[in-house]
Amino acid sequence: MSSKNPSFVLRSIKDVTFEDRPVPKIQNPTDVLIRVNVTGICGSDVHYWQHGHIGDFIVEAPMVLGHESAGTVVETGPKVTSLKPNDRVALEPGVPCRSCPFCKAGKYNLCKDMKFAATPPYDGTLAKYYILPEDFCVKLPECVSLDEGALVEPLAVGVHVVRQADIRPGNSVIVFGAGPVGLLCCSVAKAFGATKVIVVDIVDSRLEFAERYAATGTFNAMHSEDPNVNAAEMIKRFDLVFGADVAIDASGATPSINTCVHILRTGGTFVQVGMGAAEIAFPILKLCAKEITLKGSFRYGPGDYRLAVELIASGKVSVKDLITGRVKFEDAERAFEQVRNGQGIKTLIGGPLD
Amino acid sequence: MSSKNPSFVLRSIKDVTFEDRPVPKIQNPTDVLIRVNVTGICGSDVHYWQHGHIGDFIVEAPMVLGHESAGTVVETGPKVTSLKPNDRVALEPGVPCRSCPFCKAGKYNLCKDMKFAATPPYDGTLAKYYILPEDFCVKLPECVSLDEGALVEPLAVGVHVVRQADIRPGNSVIVFGAGPVGLLCCSVAKAFGATKVIVVDIVDSRLEFAERYAATGTFNAMHSEDPNVNAAEMIKRFDLVFGADVAIDASGATPSINTCVHILRTGGTFVQVGMGAAEIAFPILKLCAKEITLKGSFRYGPGDYRLAVELIASGKVSVKDLITGRVKFEDAERAFEQVRNGQGIKTLIGGPLD
Amino acid sequence: MSSKNPSFVLRSIKDVTFEDRPVPKIQNPTDVLIRVNVTGICGSDVHYWQHGHIGDFIVEAPMVLGHESAGTVVETGPKVTSLKPNDRVALEPGVPCRSCPFCKAGKYNLCKDMKFAATPPYDGTLAKYYILPEDFCVKLPECVSLDEGALVEPLAVGVHVVRQADIRPGNSVIVFGAGPVGLLCCSVAKAFGATKVIVVDIVDSRLEFAERYAATGTFNAMHSEDPNVNAAEMIKRFDLVFGADVAIDASGATPSINTCVHILRTGGTFVQVGMGAAEIAFPILKLCAKEITLKGSFRYGPGDYRLAVELIASGKVSVKDLITGRVKFEDAERAFEQVRNGQGIKTLIGGPLD
Amino acid sequence: MSSKNPSFVLRSIKDVTFEDRPVPKIQNPTDVLIRVNVTGICGSDVHYWQHGHIGDFIVEAPMVLGHESAGTVVETGPKVTSLKPNDRVALEPGVPCRSCPFCKAGKYNLCKDMKFAATPPYDGTLAKYYILPEDFCVKLPECVSLDEGALVEPLAVGVHVVRQADIRPGNSVIVFGAGPVGLLCCSVAKAFGATKVIVVDIVDSRLEFAERYAATGTFNAMHSEDPNVNAAEMIKRFDLVFGADVAIDASGATPSINTCVHILRTGGTFVQVGMGAAEIAFPILKLCAKEITLKGSFRYGPGDYRLAVELIASGKVSVKDLITGRVKFEDAERAFEQVRNGQGIKTLIGGPLD
Repeated sequence: MSSKNPSFVLRSIKDVTFEDRPVPKIQNPTDVLIRVNVTGICGSDVHYWQHGHIGDFIVEAPMVLGHESAGTVVETGPKVTSLKPNDRVALEPGVPCRSCPFCKAGKYNLCKDMKFAATPPYDGTLAKYYILPEDFCVKLPECVSLDEGALVEPLAVGVHVVRQADIRPGNSVIVFGAGPVGLLCCSVAKAFGATKVIVVDIVDSRLEFAERYAATGTFNAMHSEDPNVNAAEMIKRFDLVFGADVAIDASGATPSINTCVHILRTGGTFVQVGMGAAEIAFPILKLCAKEITLKGSFRYGPGDYRLAVELIASGKVSVKDLITGRVKFEDAERAFEQVRNGQGIKTLIGGPLD
Repeated sequence: MSSKNPSFVLRSIKDVTFEDRPVPKIQNPTDVLIRVNVTGICGSDVHYWQHGHIGDFIVEAPMVLGHESAGTVVETGPKVTSLKPNDRVALEPGVPCRSCPFCKAGKYNLCKDMKFAATPPYDGTLAKYYILPEDFCVKLPECVSLDEGALVEPLAVGVHVVRQADIRPGNSVIVFGAGPVGLLCCSVAKAFGATKVIVVDIVDSRLEFAERYAATGTFNAMHSEDPNVNAAEMIKRFDLVFGADVAIDASGATPSINTCVHILRTGGTFVQVGMGAAEIAFPILKLCAKEITLKGSFRYGPGDYRLAVELIASGKVSVKDLITGRVKFEDAERAFEQVRNGQGIKTLIGGPLD
Repeated sequence: MSSKNPSFVLRSIKDVTFEDRPVPKIQNPTDVLIRVNVTGICGSDVHYWQHGHIGDFIVEAPMVLGHESAGTVVETGPKVTSLKPNDRVALEPGVPCRSCPFCKAGKYNLCKDMKFAATPPYDGTLAKYYILPEDFCVKLPECVSLDEGALVEPLAVGVHVVRQADIRPGNSVIVFGAGPVGLLCCSVAKAFGATKVIVVDIVDSRLEFAERYAATGTFNAMHSEDPNVNAAEMIKRFDLVFGADVAIDASGATPSINTCVHILRTGGTFVQVGMGAAEIAFPILKLCAKEITLKGSFRYGPGDYRLAVELIASGKVSVKDLITGRVKFEDAERAFEQVRNGQGIKTLIGGPLD
Repeated sequence: MSSKNPSFVLRSIKDVTFEDRPVPKIQNPTDVLIRVNVTGICGSDVHYWQHGHIGDFIVEAPMVLGHESAGTVVETGPKVTSLKPNDRVALEPGVPCRSCPFCKAGKYNLCKDMKFAATPPYDGTLAKYYILPEDFCVKLPECVSLDEGALVEPLAVGVHVVRQADIRPGNSVIVFGAGPVGLLCCSVAKAFGATKVIVVDIVDSRLEFAERYAATGTFNAMHSEDPNVNAAEMIKRFDLVFGADVAIDASGATPSINTCVHILRTGGTFVQVGMGAAEIAFPILKLCAKEITLKGSFRYGPGDYRLAVELIASGKVSVKDLITGRVKFEDAERAFEQVRNGQGIKTLIGGPLD
């Protein structure tokens, strides 16, 4: 590949290719031009590839994929003060409008005019070069590698979930789903001081990984088809007394969501992050009588990216343990296939020297 | 009726009678003996009468009904300092254990050992005499009548809902269901500074009442069968821009609950208070993507009763307007029939001289 | 005056003049060019005029004064969608950087790079024309006049104070200082549902005005030199039981600040907005033992301006009642003299046809 | 000593003795009779001994001293379900009224009718036997010793401070004062996820201990007499950028309190726990302009004791490291002398077999 800015483009459903795009130019005085080194693949990338849309976001024109990236600063706009060429950065891939009520109230992840990488119609980061404003580039300390930098993105998702859940020291937390997001929520919950962090899944090998990785206990939901029975069994087995303080669903599965409501103590908090069916059968009466708080968690907001980098730098969260595969940039499609097939946990594209 | 403590007792499903019970005696030094004067009827009283249970609460022995009462102090225990005979009080009808983690953390409505009037196995207030600890008797100022005192209970439910919703000045609020609880939520929302308070129901006469009572606008949900269409129409008609800040469902109906999710702005709050089906079809994906917070609201907690009395005393909320019928204590069953038949809004049993 | 953009400029201490400045040009696509119609005068404007500095902000070059203004849209940048020529707007006079951690976390009033009108080195609004980004122009509804629009600025200060104090329905609030800010805090506190709003000052005529305007009670602090005695007297006179829920000091006077600590209930909140001595004798031990929260309040943040307009539009707060004088734009210096001499409450410069 | 319930009594200023008091009897069904094994000494115990009062609390009759104790259950009332004889417990030494608005709102530490051990007129725990309600006895897990159990009290003070400060993962925290409370705040702050925890004192040996114990950095305030200079130096030395997120003063010294205000970032939080002078010179203007929140912290409230035990059990906080001396119960006065003379950090009275 000899092109100037080779980019991995989704042309239409299941049709990806490399295109030779122009190297982007700095336009605003706070812009930073980045050489993208490493990119992780996420379920949403694969979903666009396979289905051409996620909910109302429809791929209508060729779009560069990828949004979990780290890279190296190449050039900075005249007003950039905190970064210089050769600095290594994690790329926060969504830039909001900065002037709507959501942005101004500290909720920029809810901005209607968000330009998010690899969400149509905005190009993603699976290219040689990418431009971001200075404040969406988070400098990596020396002790954090570019590989880890690429995983700041899913970690920031976990940070946001745990903040939505308002997890505090001493809390008991149940996480449903042992995929990358569930595992990272689990690790962040511990970093926030949760005493018990129980991971629930239906695949034993995933639960074994979770237990080695960060969980203080695990539970295979195949135990029973009845969410009430599973909740009661976990309350007993893990000595949860009144029930769990917090439940996080990162599975999107209806039985998991129901078990969340049953296993929470009265007044407990339930955060939904898993993207499953649009509509599910939900035990609303029990939520009401137990005065449970259910919150959605969407992407990440102010400070989440920086805290994610700090959690890695301080050793409180390990993202390295989740890397189970790597392909060269030229072989990007193979990474997509691995994720589609459920191989491993996190596959990276590219590498430090890339 | 010449008995000492005539009490209106549910013996079994659909079987009520008056029993001659002993006058209760002050046992703890902070107990207060009250002559119950006025009692309102609530859907839950009627539900026990007709079905013998609500959820897991099953009437297994004869139980006095009623829990919305005001009365006059007859006698006080030796440590009572804030009340004296002839003081008029609203009766907060649930006494918690005061020592569990929920009670100590300021959430006594979530206490597992709550003794709540007319929730099995605890007797209710539809009797001549009732005993409560001093701090669960809220003294009525001169400007608040005993009739109004009986309605402090449902008003406190509304206060708790609005506090769960954290309604602030300037908020736009949609209330689904124009029954007593919905109407009171509407009025409390205005007292908390909501600018727009829209009531949704399917009966025009109820909506007309709501508009006269406290709503700034109303909407008949028969407009469309599609919750999305109704939400879009209301956003346009009431100029809600990004959507409503708060939605309160006091209907328990699945289409209402779905409309709540569609009509809220991203980051909005949805409080569920209506007791409908145990399980409903719920648009969880949209809740997640909009980062909506859904909370249950259960009874009332610290300060809710006192604030309810203040809202009446200051004229910010009118409960008198909701009184549409009255029967003598001896005719209590007739009041239950009126409520079962959906006659009027609030029927009172007894009166100031009773 | 026939100049293009006549501007009222502070050249150096006590030296003001009109200068003929160029009409500003729209530079960013979301800029709005406004014909300034009405401007109020604030203590800080007078302070710069008399002293040439406020704290670390020093006037080192000629600076246009004024920051409480309303005006009419003359021209809009190509990306402005919510405003058009002839729309009347209140001018929020401080534009933050939008990209620092404070701005992104919903605290733009704490931005280090804030460009605030008439805070050196930035020019103020006392000119014929002024430019602001669209989202810092708040459109006035028909029922709100330009005079009222000019007073949105001090009202927004009051809104921010009351939000810092987290005043809730039923609260008792003591406001120290019956100047414009104190009076507006008082009125906003009531709009937020405070039941008791007591104003404290040492001038009877101001207290009489406060009582007519919005206070539910008043107290002359000349009652005693001892803050403890004054606090005890007010607790008794106004039946505050455990003490006040909230105290707001808009006086900056040491005895007031001490009285705040004494009059608050344990766990109460104290907001300081008055700009007085840099350092005072403070009863820190009592603050500690009573677990009081003391917060500063600085300018206004997200949503404060819009809520201020809503409070005027809904009739919950009257700003008109505070207007006690008016001078023509050409006579601006006279308005400064009136404020310096403590004449009236609010003097406006200019008018609707100006 | 052969008495039934030997008790260490303060008869008047500087006059302590052992008295032979009757063994207390279980009176309420939830009472627990405890054999007190180990007691720590706190500055307030010493202050009563030396001065006969703390603020308005005056020792007017002989009073048993001590309130930092752990012991063994001897007997339980008939309704006690969670404890049985021989269970080891930490004693939470203040029992509130459970029915005032503070208790019911989750703020029992602010209860006016608190009965607190060794706060006049209530006897303390430096006796052989003591009675507490079940819910104020916190069972020690096997891995927590009685010595550690005695130190749960000061640790709970630290937990409450950190909760008042609302310390979150990633925060930078400055703690003034390297005494027991300051050190424990430091350790709890780290357990709550603070990234930087800087301890400030004027004694190098204490700072060295702090650094070994839990601080990530230390600063000797003898560096400068000017709080501004010290603040600026620390911001530079510890790379605090905008300033610290949280400052905790556990020294009570005026220069420390001033430095807190200077070193905080705008919008930062300052918690005062040190008991020093009643009144100090305070930079209120800067607090206001930086919108700092200053909170008092008083004792501990719901959940603080249980979390303190969990932090010890999980190894997140070490209290053992603070034990620098021990005397037999019969030599209790000697422990008081050690604390008065500033010898060591924590002196315990008694021991596991005592």
